[in-house]
Amino acid sequence: MSSLWNNRISISIFGESHGPAIGVVIDNLPPGEYIDIEELGRFMKRRAPKKDGTTTSRSEKDMPQILSGVINEHTTGTPLCAFIQNTDMHSGDYSNIQRCARPGHADYTGAVRYKGFNDVRGGGHFSGRLTAPLCFAGALCGQILERRGIYTGAHIAEIHGIKDKAFDSVNVSREDILNVRYKDFPVINDKKGEKMKEDINYARMNCESLGGIIECASINVPAGIGSPIFDGLENSMAQLIFGIPAVKGLEFGAGFGVAKMVGSTNNDEFYVDDHGHVLTRTNNHGGILGGISSGMPITLKVAIKPTPSIAKEQPTVDMHEMKNDTISIHGRHDPCIVPRAVPCVEAAVNIALLAKMLDYPNFC
Amino acid sequence: MSSLWNNRISISIFGESHGPAIGVVIDNLPPGEYIDIEELGRFMKRRAPKKDGTTTSRSEKDMPQILSGVINEHTTGTPLCAFIQNTDMHSGDYSNIQRCARPGHADYTGAVRYKGFNDVRGGGHFSGRLTAPLCFAGALCGQILERRGIYTGAHIAEIHGIKDKAFDSVNVSREDILNVRYKDFPVINDKKGEKMKEDINYARMNCESLGGIIECASINVPAGIGSPIFDGLENSMAQLIFGIPAVKGLEFGAGFGVAKMVGSTNNDEFYVDDHGHVLTRTNNHGGILGGISSGMPITLKVAIKPTPSIAKEQPTVDMHEMKNDTISIHGRHDPCIVPRAVPCVEAAVNIALLAKMLDYPNFC
Amino acid sequence: MSSLWNNRISISIFGESHGPAIGVVIDNLPPGEYIDIEELGRFMKRRAPKKDGTTTSRSEKDMPQILSGVINEHTTGTPLCAFIQNTDMHSGDYSNIQRCARPGHADYTGAVRYKGFNDVRGGGHFSGRLTAPLCFAGALCGQILERRGIYTGAHIAEIHGIKDKAFDSVNVSREDILNVRYKDFPVINDKKGEKMKEDINYARMNCESLGGIIECASINVPAGIGSPIFDGLENSMAQLIFGIPAVKGLEFGAGFGVAKMVGSTNNDEFYVDDHGHVLTRTNNHGGILGGISSGMPITLKVAIKPTPSIAKEQPTVDMHEMKNDTISIHGRHDPCIVPRAVPCVEAAVNIALLAKMLDYPNFC
Amino acid sequence: MSSLWNNRISISIFGESHGPAIGVVIDNLPPGEYIDIEELGRFMKRRAPKKDGTTTSRSEKDMPQILSGVINEHTTGTPLCAFIQNTDMHSGDYSNIQRCARPGHADYTGAVRYKGFNDVRGGGHFSGRLTAPLCFAGALCGQILERRGIYTGAHIAEIHGIKDKAFDSVNVSREDILNVRYKDFPVINDKKGEKMKEDINYARMNCESLGGIIECASINVPAGIGSPIFDGLENSMAQLIFGIPAVKGLEFGAGFGVAKMVGSTNNDEFYVDDHGHVLTRTNNHGGILGGISSGMPITLKVAIKPTPSIAKEQPTVDMHEMKNDTISIHGRHDPCIVPRAVPCVEAAVNIALLAKMLDYPNFC
Repeated sequence: MSSLWNNRISISIFGESHGPAIGVVIDNLPPGEYIDIEELGRFMKRRAPKKDGTTTSRSEKDMPQILSGVINEHTTGTPLCAFIQNTDMHSGDYSNIQRCARPGHADYTGAVRYKGFNDVRGGGHFSGRLTAPLCFAGALCGQILERRGIYTGAHIAEIHGIKDKAFDSVNVSREDILNVRYKDFPVINDKKGEKMKEDINYARMNCESLGGIIECASINVPAGIGSPIFDGLENSMAQLIFGIPAVKGLEFGAGFGVAKMVGSTNNDEFYVDDHGHVLTRTNNHGGILGGISSGMPITLKVAIKPTPSIAKEQPTVDMHEMKNDTISIHGRHDPCIVPRAVPCVEAAVNIALLAKMLDYPNFC
Repeated sequence: MSSLWNNRISISIFGESHGPAIGVVIDNLPPGEYIDIEELGRFMKRRAPKKDGTTTSRSEKDMPQILSGVINEHTTGTPLCAFIQNTDMHSGDYSNIQRCARPGHADYTGAVRYKGFNDVRGGGHFSGRLTAPLCFAGALCGQILERRGIYTGAHIAEIHGIKDKAFDSVNVSREDILNVRYKDFPVINDKKGEKMKEDINYARMNCESLGGIIECASINVPAGIGSPIFDGLENSMAQLIFGIPAVKGLEFGAGFGVAKMVGSTNNDEFYVDDHGHVLTRTNNHGGILGGISSGMPITLKVAIKPTPSIAKEQPTVDMHEMKNDTISIHGRHDPCIVPRAVPCVEAAVNIALLAKMLDYPNFC
Repeated sequence: MSSLWNNRISISIFGESHGPAIGVVIDNLPPGEYIDIEELGRFMKRRAPKKDGTTTSRSEKDMPQILSGVINEHTTGTPLCAFIQNTDMHSGDYSNIQRCARPGHADYTGAVRYKGFNDVRGGGHFSGRLTAPLCFAGALCGQILERRGIYTGAHIAEIHGIKDKAFDSVNVSREDILNVRYKDFPVINDKKGEKMKEDINYARMNCESLGGIIECASINVPAGIGSPIFDGLENSMAQLIFGIPAVKGLEFGAGFGVAKMVGSTNNDEFYVDDHGHVLTRTNNHGGILGGISSGMPITLKVAIKPTPSIAKEQPTVDMHEMKNDTISIHGRHDPCIVPRAVPCVEAAVNIALLAKMLDYPNFC
Repeated sequence: MSSLWNNRISISIFGESHGPAIGVVIDNLPPGEYIDIEELGRFMKRRAPKKDGTTTSRSEKDMPQILSGVINEHTTGTPLCAFIQNTDMHSGDYSNIQRCARPGHADYTGAVRYKGFNDVRGGGHFSGRLTAPLCFAGALCGQILERRGIYTGAHIAEIHGIKDKAFDSVNVSREDILNVRYKDFPVINDKKGEKMKEDINYARMNCESLGGIIECASINVPAGIGSPIFDGLENSMAQLIFGIPAVKGLEFGAGFGVAKMVGSTNNDEFYVDDHGHVLTRTNNHGGILGGISSGMPITLKVAIKPTPSIAKEQPTVDMHEMKNDTISIHGRHDPCIVPRAVPCVEAAVNIALLAKMLDYPNFC
């Protein structure tokens, strides 16, 4: 299935960028969970375009309407469908892409896969807009987890070589997560954030775009969540995170850094703290061993490529005539998708965590 | 399910390191595919320990016995079960780990997850030995793919900072893949390989272990394989690759390098070649756009952590007494698992590719 | 998942009887399939209430709106979402059932399963209304199948002991199927139909309801569709058909009649006809052997229980006070659901067939 | 997947009748469950051929060997693989069926499905022998359920028109279930059993075979197990039960009898008993409403066709020459498979129940 994730919770995403609506069906949510609609709105707003030039100027009022699965602000336990009507579409912007494949986009691969029948307007089902229902689902799962003390937060770790301060992988706290959550530009170090924004605006003015890295942490996940081999926390999170367009890399804990370490450095020593809890002194394992949570913060990083839609002219192919051509893309596009991808990564992590938590013996 | 991957092909892995046997059931293979048993043996041998001190001294004659699904050397189309009897086990080596969690291992997380009922001998179901049935399944899928011209090959890209030559991401050929495949130490540049081996032996003698990076490429995958969002090639490969113990990171194409690029550099220009094929001049997208193959080589890198089992004494916890303790691990362990993980990565990629290829209209 | 069927095609049904909308997401449809909206409307109308007193008087204009997955009247291949807004609801009719469990309904079991958080208005997610999206999905799959010559049709085989003529299990034709399809009261023998209608009206006037049996046949399914053991045509059809509320039994071919036969009678002799096709002279096997189609008509029967909602007073329990009570149900209910269940059975069969057909080598 | 059932617990069955072995991998069993091997043996023996002429004379010592997932007689929680070596095979008996399709068997459909590459010896993967691993899995699940008070039992309800006494659908007790469980010929009324056996022997002597009906009941299943629409108890049980070869029909509770009832008769009145439990006075709903258990006994009936393998000569086709031919089958076959199918039905029900019970909040 293209757009179905089915693992204790199922997430079925539908819609095209310029169709009537996009949305999601979430099945197997626990019944009786309070849904804070205002809080959902705040989460969705973090993904919405900003007015500061760092994002697209398309106005996306993307608060989904809940069609089922919630009554009196509590989940019923039966499938929850949320949908977002598409508005403010400029389909004219995209008229040339039916012929000319945009480099870095799925225009060409989608046309081959779907024999030319896919909806190309605005990228269709491949559009970054499809992360709105993912965010909705993840925000909702996040509320259920936070009620049990489990907090997930992400921030921009790097854009075009400018690095934010990292989370403390051992001691990252609820406050650390909440402090960055509702910033307009989600970085820990705002000065670095200013530099990033300058860089993004500079790229925009030069018809360019930028990539970056997002860091995410989840705290208070109890030890023992997940499974070995194919159904571990890494596998499930990876399957969801690679569902966010533009993701090209994913690492947990020390990630690619392990390639330079020796065993005694990489191994995280266990110890028992004063409360009788088993902890590790370092957290190169990113809170996951053998696919299963250790009780330490779960930490991961995600690489996001530069927005492929740029105004600069690029060589490409005309898929109808099968000859070389050029394209320059004039729609409203984000010069850097990283800031808006921050809540998407959180959402993916929340979904995976809640799915695995449902098997936890004391979950209720 | 802990050990079931179910996506057009299903792979159900079973067994514990020191139990009677390990194995795999593979369902939905196409019928009538010739199975070259000798070639399977050669693939399995690549995963087997070597005599040069870079691997464990446990002798693992790991050629699986096929119990079903093959007759007259051809697949029947019904489930194929292969199993490997466990021999040459020294269970005495592991007697202390029931109490003391080995740092970097799943002893602690497994005990919590399975309430202490998991088999701890040799790591039980968490053992690296469970990659043997994965390799078998992947080798078999690889034979089916190679008959259709699709070749997958991997090599050691880096160990402890020493880097091998990389595949040419645009022009990597069948010869490039086969040249490295059956080397005892799978690197492109053998001089770099010698340095890596020296480093590994040095680590072994110092009771240490090393991590590294594996690069993998698949060629001749037709354009149009895969799906957007949750069921793309990246998602499926990720789910399988994070099933290999010790994997901490995964990137496709330019991977984490995209964070430093601008759009016009990262975008791979399309062009039509003299044969009328659509190609790209660079391959930062790693052969995948929107979850779907572009026809360019599929390229990915995998980070492998240093073997957690080291002879050096390490602080840890006694899980029975819930107090701090120390452990030094004296079994037969690989000082660097990277070389043996090379065929495992290939296997995972082969399985994902064959699964997706089954949907390809002209597959037969 | 409560409401997800995931087998090559996925069907994710959502909604509650008195919520804002009900609908379905269908994933993995083949791209480029023409969708005849008018024909879809005709199919949906067969499920809609009639004006002749045999059905509920609730007016259900249940033509779904397609939100995604179709462009220029052809499937895109990406998820298709269709939704139906709920209108003409009299929620006041159902005010007592939050306390008093209606006998034969899921009020009690749903309350226990969902800890009292389920939507009870109109039966919520358990309502027969949820068969509307099922019908929509099935009608759509049916169009794709009919373009390839595969026709599925059902009729009322029996209501309250009055029996319709049966399909000829060996020679049932496209004409036989189409002849009954758009009748207001789908029986082969209209005289028997008149008797059934009289019986239904008599039941209605006596505050009663009636059950019955539906017979369904699919023709021109090529031999070789399906799989042994758990993924055969029977298993998949069963999983879908038991998703229709009120179904209590299902049989294929001779069904329960096999219990009275001897082997030589039950076995269907194979022969080669003048065109070189393998056929059977009888069809006790209902077109399926070992889970796989034989090329003969697929025949099955489905038992539908009398509508549990009746005006007659019935003893039951007050779930809040946990004491005995009585209930008489005064909403608008079908005195016999069998006629409206006829297209539902067809829909379920169509979905299962298309899912399995996707694996057929020459499907395109 | 042909032979994978994947629903909270996964059951992956492999093997062919005359291959080296058959078996099953069971994933996601709860850890720490005691496995009574002797009791497993008793369950398996119920499926084994008898010496009284009512079954095949093939000697099947079918006690599986456990390869993984159990240590110190307790489940580890990781995948359990059990396998049975095939012995006492007379492959010569089947030499003609590669050419001539046995009527009522999957020889023809299997050959088309698998393009002639399937293993035809003894029916290969379509053989009734594949119910041995199903029984093993079901027996194991049954032990876990019985420890929690949930008992499932089946008996022969009818063979060739001779009917056994039925279970009391409201009051069936643990004693009723255990009384019939270990009888050599599992009927409640032994006199009827003697008549059935005479009939079977008469059929055998006349080169014929007989079909029948099995009744099954599960008691003490708590209310609230299961889900609406596609993932209810009926759907899951149906998917498993139609995995038993020769099953042609399945009904729950009053089943096809509902077609003759009126609503007030079919509806089961709820009442609260002296202990404050909600019960129903009748049990036409078979313990399931809306896919969810009501707390009443779960009752179902399964139709089993006469063994298709009969010594009597039958017309058929030669699949190689594509011309008409005749076949008479001289291997060792059961003249009536119904008695041996009794534990298979129990096994299927046990698996479905345990899978659903894993979601029950207080399961542990």
